[in-house]
Amino acid sequence: MHAPAPSPSSPAAPRRARELGLTLGDLPTGPHNALTDVPGVRVGHTTLIRPPRVHSGVTAIVPEGVGPGNPLPAGVFAGNGYGKLLGSTQIAELGAIETPVLLTSTLSAFRAADALVGWVLERPEGADVRSLNPVVGECNDGLLSDIRSRPVYEEHVRAALDSASEGPVAEGSVGAGTGTVALGFKAGIGTSSRCVRIAGREATLGVLVQANFGGTLRVLGRTVTPADVGLPAPEPTPDDGSCMVVVATDAPLDARQLTRLARRAVYALGRVGAAYAHGSGDYGLALGTRRLGTPAGPAVVPDDSLDALFAAVLDAVEEAVLNSLLTATVTTGPGGDTRHPLPADALLALLKK
Amino acid sequence: MHAPAPSPSSPAAPRRARELGLTLGDLPTGPHNALTDVPGVRVGHTTLIRPPRVHSGVTAIVPEGVGPGNPLPAGVFAGNGYGKLLGSTQIAELGAIETPVLLTSTLSAFRAADALVGWVLERPEGADVRSLNPVVGECNDGLLSDIRSRPVYEEHVRAALDSASEGPVAEGSVGAGTGTVALGFKAGIGTSSRCVRIAGREATLGVLVQANFGGTLRVLGRTVTPADVGLPAPEPTPDDGSCMVVVATDAPLDARQLTRLARRAVYALGRVGAAYAHGSGDYGLALGTRRLGTPAGPAVVPDDSLDALFAAVLDAVEEAVLNSLLTATVTTGPGGDTRHPLPADALLALLKK
Amino acid sequence: MHAPAPSPSSPAAPRRARELGLTLGDLPTGPHNALTDVPGVRVGHTTLIRPPRVHSGVTAIVPEGVGPGNPLPAGVFAGNGYGKLLGSTQIAELGAIETPVLLTSTLSAFRAADALVGWVLERPEGADVRSLNPVVGECNDGLLSDIRSRPVYEEHVRAALDSASEGPVAEGSVGAGTGTVALGFKAGIGTSSRCVRIAGREATLGVLVQANFGGTLRVLGRTVTPADVGLPAPEPTPDDGSCMVVVATDAPLDARQLTRLARRAVYALGRVGAAYAHGSGDYGLALGTRRLGTPAGPAVVPDDSLDALFAAVLDAVEEAVLNSLLTATVTTGPGGDTRHPLPADALLALLKK
Amino acid sequence: MHAPAPSPSSPAAPRRARELGLTLGDLPTGPHNALTDVPGVRVGHTTLIRPPRVHSGVTAIVPEGVGPGNPLPAGVFAGNGYGKLLGSTQIAELGAIETPVLLTSTLSAFRAADALVGWVLERPEGADVRSLNPVVGECNDGLLSDIRSRPVYEEHVRAALDSASEGPVAEGSVGAGTGTVALGFKAGIGTSSRCVRIAGREATLGVLVQANFGGTLRVLGRTVTPADVGLPAPEPTPDDGSCMVVVATDAPLDARQLTRLARRAVYALGRVGAAYAHGSGDYGLALGTRRLGTPAGPAVVPDDSLDALFAAVLDAVEEAVLNSLLTATVTTGPGGDTRHPLPADALLALLKK
Repeated sequence: MHAPAPSPSSPAAPRRARELGLTLGDLPTGPHNALTDVPGVRVGHTTLIRPPRVHSGVTAIVPEGVGPGNPLPAGVFAGNGYGKLLGSTQIAELGAIETPVLLTSTLSAFRAADALVGWVLERPEGADVRSLNPVVGECNDGLLSDIRSRPVYEEHVRAALDSASEGPVAEGSVGAGTGTVALGFKAGIGTSSRCVRIAGREATLGVLVQANFGGTLRVLGRTVTPADVGLPAPEPTPDDGSCMVVVATDAPLDARQLTRLARRAVYALGRVGAAYAHGSGDYGLALGTRRLGTPAGPAVVPDDSLDALFAAVLDAVEEAVLNSLLTATVTTGPGGDTRHPLPADALLALLKK
Repeated sequence: MHAPAPSPSSPAAPRRARELGLTLGDLPTGPHNALTDVPGVRVGHTTLIRPPRVHSGVTAIVPEGVGPGNPLPAGVFAGNGYGKLLGSTQIAELGAIETPVLLTSTLSAFRAADALVGWVLERPEGADVRSLNPVVGECNDGLLSDIRSRPVYEEHVRAALDSASEGPVAEGSVGAGTGTVALGFKAGIGTSSRCVRIAGREATLGVLVQANFGGTLRVLGRTVTPADVGLPAPEPTPDDGSCMVVVATDAPLDARQLTRLARRAVYALGRVGAAYAHGSGDYGLALGTRRLGTPAGPAVVPDDSLDALFAAVLDAVEEAVLNSLLTATVTTGPGGDTRHPLPADALLALLKK
Repeated sequence: MHAPAPSPSSPAAPRRARELGLTLGDLPTGPHNALTDVPGVRVGHTTLIRPPRVHSGVTAIVPEGVGPGNPLPAGVFAGNGYGKLLGSTQIAELGAIETPVLLTSTLSAFRAADALVGWVLERPEGADVRSLNPVVGECNDGLLSDIRSRPVYEEHVRAALDSASEGPVAEGSVGAGTGTVALGFKAGIGTSSRCVRIAGREATLGVLVQANFGGTLRVLGRTVTPADVGLPAPEPTPDDGSCMVVVATDAPLDARQLTRLARRAVYALGRVGAAYAHGSGDYGLALGTRRLGTPAGPAVVPDDSLDALFAAVLDAVEEAVLNSLLTATVTTGPGGDTRHPLPADALLALLKK
Repeated sequence: MHAPAPSPSSPAAPRRARELGLTLGDLPTGPHNALTDVPGVRVGHTTLIRPPRVHSGVTAIVPEGVGPGNPLPAGVFAGNGYGKLLGSTQIAELGAIETPVLLTSTLSAFRAADALVGWVLERPEGADVRSLNPVVGECNDGLLSDIRSRPVYEEHVRAALDSASEGPVAEGSVGAGTGTVALGFKAGIGTSSRCVRIAGREATLGVLVQANFGGTLRVLGRTVTPADVGLPAPEPTPDDGSCMVVVATDAPLDARQLTRLARRAVYALGRVGAAYAHGSGDYGLALGTRRLGTPAGPAVVPDDSLDALFAAVLDAVEEAVLNSLLTATVTTGPGGDTRHPLPADALLALLKK
């Protein structure tokens, strides 16, 4: 972490951490500093805002070509299993995913999974499918959204899947992050990436977080409470946060190694001050875009070359969480609770003290 | 296992293993030789039969009083994680279930979970619920049912939950077992129970299986193929079986101990000839009906007193699988595949040879 | 399982199951029907017999070339973790072993591990070693041996390692099986192998068991107690059995897949009547002799081709346990307890009834 | 984390973090700010220094009364399983420890375990022991000590066990920390404690770390390299660090809950800048000093009251690592590598900038 350089800008414009001069680690980012920097990985959001009742949505992570009969290697880690990550036991057993990954609101996860099944069954590669393991992560957006209404429907899931694209990824109060909060601030979706040289070749690693956890924010050597940056102190939130972290890389890794990445995706949350509270279901899911095990495929990276990727995960997750806090939008929930994003200028002023 | 006594009966009447004289182990059964012998545990089925296309359904296991704010201790074991047991990571983390347990068809599991969420939200104890961990196991009934039609709807789930009752449990081609097959035969739901004396007190252990796995049946010291009992040899089935085993007991056990029971629920399948094939998602789920951790509660059973319960699990699961095979109904699927139950009289004749 | 053909022989000569006509499954065995049928895998025993006090020893499984800097893929499964398998967490994390595997007596496992470290450090490939993960499994031979004397010393470990050879493997009351008992009989070391065709190529799978567990023996599905074969009923043994099963194969499998084999190594024990008791630490350890992840290496076997190997594990473990019972030697321990092996002729007579 | 108050002192005197004004979190410490604040928990060290060749040792953590037949509840978490924590599978299965816990040097762990077995067998409570699960953690002190000489002998283990005492705990270059390094500095043993109010009663939680891991130190969130505090930049160390964290509490927790604490013991390392590198075997072990499951025993703490203990673990581990760095002694290893502890005055000067 390096001290931020001054960054003149409009106070109103949400800005990403790196634009503010907050640099995490030494590794360079990819062109968009996003999960989509990993070739073939697309992201789509459906954002549901019907104030004050609904602030929710769904985010789809769509690796190119994944589907029944064409699995991608994957690993999962339940840092705190108080959550409902659908598909986890099969990922652990087979070391693979066979669908895109959805993130959404806790009580909507099941119909999102059903919608994902329907979406796959209708596609050409789903024509003969009789078994499928949809992967759906969730966070609880019940503070800022009427979670009991289960507002995510099949059409929303399909829209997120079908709109998934490469390039820059919308962050903050979008998709599955529309109603989430973290570390006393409005949070949401955040993303980041790193380029590494590993085992003699270039590789990209990207992460995307759905941030919704408690604790006290740490930025560049400072604890930062809402009061420290001029915001009203929030009421204590109920004990039902969580954080879903999705990691993707084009480094040729097998499922066991991806599980090692998934672990570090959760470990990284401690750097930004996560409390790892009882009610916070913190999961890491890591997928590889390179199919292995084929004669023509690349050699698997040796484990003793993984440290660059481990550093990339730690740095990128830390940055993605900061991005989620900086780019979110002030939001008031159905019960009158308001959460503010992390204000960039007040943060910079604090860090310069 | 003891040699069966002669048992005169009509060939047409499906009979349970014990009625045929097939006795597994030395422990006595409960009054109904069923999961419902555990006080407070109820079972309900919704059976969907629309020949030849649909042979499917849902089975609900409803422990009395379980619900949000009133969890029961539970443990889970993924013997072969090629399956979608919803709720597993949270059970592993918190050692508890907070909903009834559903069993159903693979591709219908997600809408069944959503229906279970809705059912809980509407109940008095669900009035303030903003997070819930529905538990849904599944087997693939795609050989004998059009699994892609996802025929299980909210109304079917609610009917199974609302009709759950104590007393005898319907077995064979009912509920979640309507379309399942095992060991070359038509299978389905099976159940059994045992009474044990443990740590100075009486306890009951019951099991219920949704049997759907491959292998070659072993009964009382014999391998028994369909041909051995005069049935046509079935076409090899696709590699997508599974077995869900639910165990319940009123012995005061904690989650770790229940996990030990759940393991043995899967280990028991080897006794009846399970192949533990790649595609067979074999899971054990064990729940305790005694809440622990309260000052007035019973003392937890010491681990070195668990062997009686371990024996009860092994014996009861073996018997429940036999029951599922003996009580099922000949069924022909949408593709013309036919599976026959295990014929009692031919089996007895074979065992007497 | 097929009915045994009559087999004339001397009652005194210990015979393996297959020599008695007991055939498990349809797959052919390797030339020695032993773990050593896997190319490059050697086995050595040091047997310690000083009656009546000591009946113990150590068995070494030495895959060719394994060592620091030259790991082999491996997976481990703790079916019942009441045991001390040294090295298990590192195998799970890295998916590899870097030393031979030792089996020995429970309380001697730690000095055996220390001796294995010393043996490696002295070898050329150990010249720069500053970290090492010795793998040592154990069973409790305390019924028939003075386990508290920890009779296994460095010299015994070295002798087992240095004498390891290809070809036939001594079974019964040898090495780590010298003092073990199972299913009411004197047991010990047993081994078996299978040849499979998998993913278009031939592969061999071998197993070796150190059998020491409780339950009631099932042979060809029939329960067989000591009394059934004319032996005195043994006093109930203390609750401290176990079974270590080591699997090796030259099929190109990664660590996750080998873990799937290791699971089935434990599941197979149910077929021969294991009680999976509280005190029985039942572990499976599976290693692959083919290094993966190199450009010139073989393609990893697809998971949906693993069923032949799964069947091989189940059948070979069942046969290896029978071999351990049939080839053991009547032994009396320091407390006067006597255990008899399974008598071949009485068994055959029983099975013909 | 609060800004440190100025603290006049001699530069030479090693001082603990809290004495420097570095306060982690809001919870008060116990009287000694040490693991031994948990009633009944004693700590002993044997320190082996024979410069330049040997800087090693053993640390014993001795909970009162623990022994065969008198287990204590415990949970373990392998954050990165590249390590040899002896006893882990049995702790996971039975949720208990039955011996004191030793920490030592990697290659000496096995003879330390053997020595611990011998120590227990000789004690009155060990008179009938035929099975025992010694618990031994390790870090690799091979940079500053001749690890291959395995310098820890039975007498050293016994001295650590027999000298274990309540009250203040020696930190830094003592016992198992004599030769360890972390975050570019000389590290060693560190300890800290917290007092919490949980479920209506007071409880104490203590931690002890054997710090030996890589990464870039973060103090009060600020990155601190050796160069930042006026030290020569160390040569990059080989990839074989680790961190063992032992947690104890007198809160009545069961094994599953203690496992949740053990997880957070590893997660806390991220706060101080751990790289969670491939070669760093990071383990958490948590034990409870209150036996549960007895009719007269205390009620288990509800999971939704655990957050205070989770915060206590995170804060105490962070502080313990800082203590290990601040109290260590400059050490030069057999290969000429030198590591300096974190200099208090330079650190304070840096933090005031």
